[in-house]
Amino acid sequence: MADNGLALGIDLGGTKIYAVITDASGKILSEAKNATDNGAGPEKIASDILELGKTAASQIGVSLDDIQPVGVAIPAPVDPETGDCLHATNLGWKNFSLKNTFHKLFGREVYMNNDGNLGTLGEYVYGAAQGFKTVIGYYVGTGLGGGIIINGHLHCGNSGLAGEFGHAIIRKGGRRCGCGHRGCAEAYCSKIAFVKALKKEIFKKGQHTLLPPDKFNICSKNIKSKQLAKAYFAGDASVRRVVNDGAYMLGVAAASASAIVAPDCIILGGGVIEELGTEMYPAFKRSFDAHLFGLDPAKVGIRFAKLGDNAVAVGATVYARNKGKI
Amino acid sequence: MADNGLALGIDLGGTKIYAVITDASGKILSEAKNATDNGAGPEKIASDILELGKTAASQIGVSLDDIQPVGVAIPAPVDPETGDCLHATNLGWKNFSLKNTFHKLFGREVYMNNDGNLGTLGEYVYGAAQGFKTVIGYYVGTGLGGGIIINGHLHCGNSGLAGEFGHAIIRKGGRRCGCGHRGCAEAYCSKIAFVKALKKEIFKKGQHTLLPPDKFNICSKNIKSKQLAKAYFAGDASVRRVVNDGAYMLGVAAASASAIVAPDCIILGGGVIEELGTEMYPAFKRSFDAHLFGLDPAKVGIRFAKLGDNAVAVGATVYARNKGKI
Repeated sequence: MADNGLALGIDLGGTKIYAVITDASGKILSEAKNATDNGAGPEKIASDILELGKTAASQIGVSLDDIQPVGVAIPAPVDPETGDCLHATNLGWKNFSLKNTFHKLFGREVYMNNDGNLGTLGEYVYGAAQGFKTVIGYYVGTGLGGGIIINGHLHCGNSGLAGEFGHAIIRKGGRRCGCGHRGCAEAYCSKIAFVKALKKEIFKKGQHTLLPPDKFNICSKNIKSKQLAKAYFAGDASVRRVVNDGAYMLGVAAASASAIVAPDCIILGGGVIEELGTEMYPAFKRSFDAHLFGLDPAKVGIRFAKLGDNAVAVGATVYARNKGKI
Repeated sequence: MADNGLALGIDLGGTKIYAVITDASGKILSEAKNATDNGAGPEKIASDILELGKTAASQIGVSLDDIQPVGVAIPAPVDPETGDCLHATNLGWKNFSLKNTFHKLFGREVYMNNDGNLGTLGEYVYGAAQGFKTVIGYYVGTGLGGGIIINGHLHCGNSGLAGEFGHAIIRKGGRRCGCGHRGCAEAYCSKIAFVKALKKEIFKKGQHTLLPPDKFNICSKNIKSKQLAKAYFAGDASVRRVVNDGAYMLGVAAASASAIVAPDCIILGGGVIEELGTEMYPAFKRSFDAHLFGLDPAKVGIRFAKLGDNAVAVGATVYARNKGKI
């Protein structure tokens, strides 16, 4: 296989699978996406990923076999010792070697890592975090994901569980998080947290919201970022309150994490930030500055993610090019 | 200057200055200590350090000039870009280059870093954290200090402020910390926190304590670890409650930090842990396990610091041997 400089990166999400092919300079030459077959087992999802890779390759007139480095980002921790993920609660599988399955399907090693990690890596190499040394990324979507770069290296930590900023406890005894603990950052700033808080506004406090009523039946757990933004821009007071409170608590979380990691750059990304980043920024920044320990706020670059939806898949190409050693 | 393998390490603390000389294997050949001249300016303290180094050297029949690497640990952050510390609130100086002063006094470069960082480094190279990859150290003394090792490297971060675990916020809106924020880990687990909590027990709740009454006048801020331990072992119910509550909150802090750093080793050290570590461990561990996200508690080695009072000074020798590049 001649090295044509191409790399395939996959972002496996809970609702969609996204593929990009980049050239040696990181430029995206081809994109393809597909819905995630949520009911299906890991074999089916892995084979859907292969097909999507083939589609992306054919769009630029190459065969998938001509693309050597393949990286896959998954919404679960990947063990840095084995490069594998045996249990992925979000994706509904247990005791299954995704790495071996990919190896068989692709006929070569496929490099896997967590989506928050690879999104941060993508931003570090080609996006908003270029030129910084210590970078922490916060991704506000359904949950609150993250990643850490230290001196140019992705820090994965024990069992690949570093950068789980959503589950740092910032208010012991506070709101119940989906993980079972109380006071996790994700319980304050994520779409899951926003829906919970909005239900409280509506059912307990009798407030109104412009969001579709079906989002507030007893079972609904999620909402689309675009719907949230639409209500926000239409002046929905409940939505504004909940989103701004979330941004404020994200500032607490980022300041608290800064006492540990001392970053020189914080990336804010994810669906909610893409839609409402500018609106959330003032509350975030006020809170971040107020809760920061020791560090001069002027020495911490706060940047919105630049690669948008592409960050994770692009990060996966970077990771694969480096054979998982970065 | 021939390389005889010796190194001088200094631990500059708020109450004492401690010097060690180690050989190439890390063995301590000489120790010396002195009280910190707290009212004095940085020039005087720097010259006291020089004299202490000379004393330590003369004890083993060498001249200080024969010892090339000199490292100094200080209770303040050191900028990793400059290797200097211009402002040290704890030590009462501002806009003063300690690095230049040391350079003039010692006639060679002196490598400085934060005491929590160098204590963790000492434990990593010669103590309880040997063989681990990602290490976080908690030092419970007057305050709550810390340090981080990532894949064998000391992580200092932006402006040298990484590893300030005492100021990670674990209970937003909670107890007021000396830094001005609310809910910092140090406000729950440090001698300062214990004295505050004991004052509340005594004055508000009418509880008794076996601690000397002068520790509870309006101005007292600190207490000796040995006094605390004495009261604890004598069955002082207030002291036991306060110390065990602190240990529990330290478990929350360590679990929360683990969601960010994902360590495979946590070092517990400092004066309070030396005296009461075994007693505090059950509450710490119960809380740590209960608040840990994702990580298997069995995969995180929790170790008491092994080098005791020597850890920081020994870490300073390691740092100096590596010319600050570790």
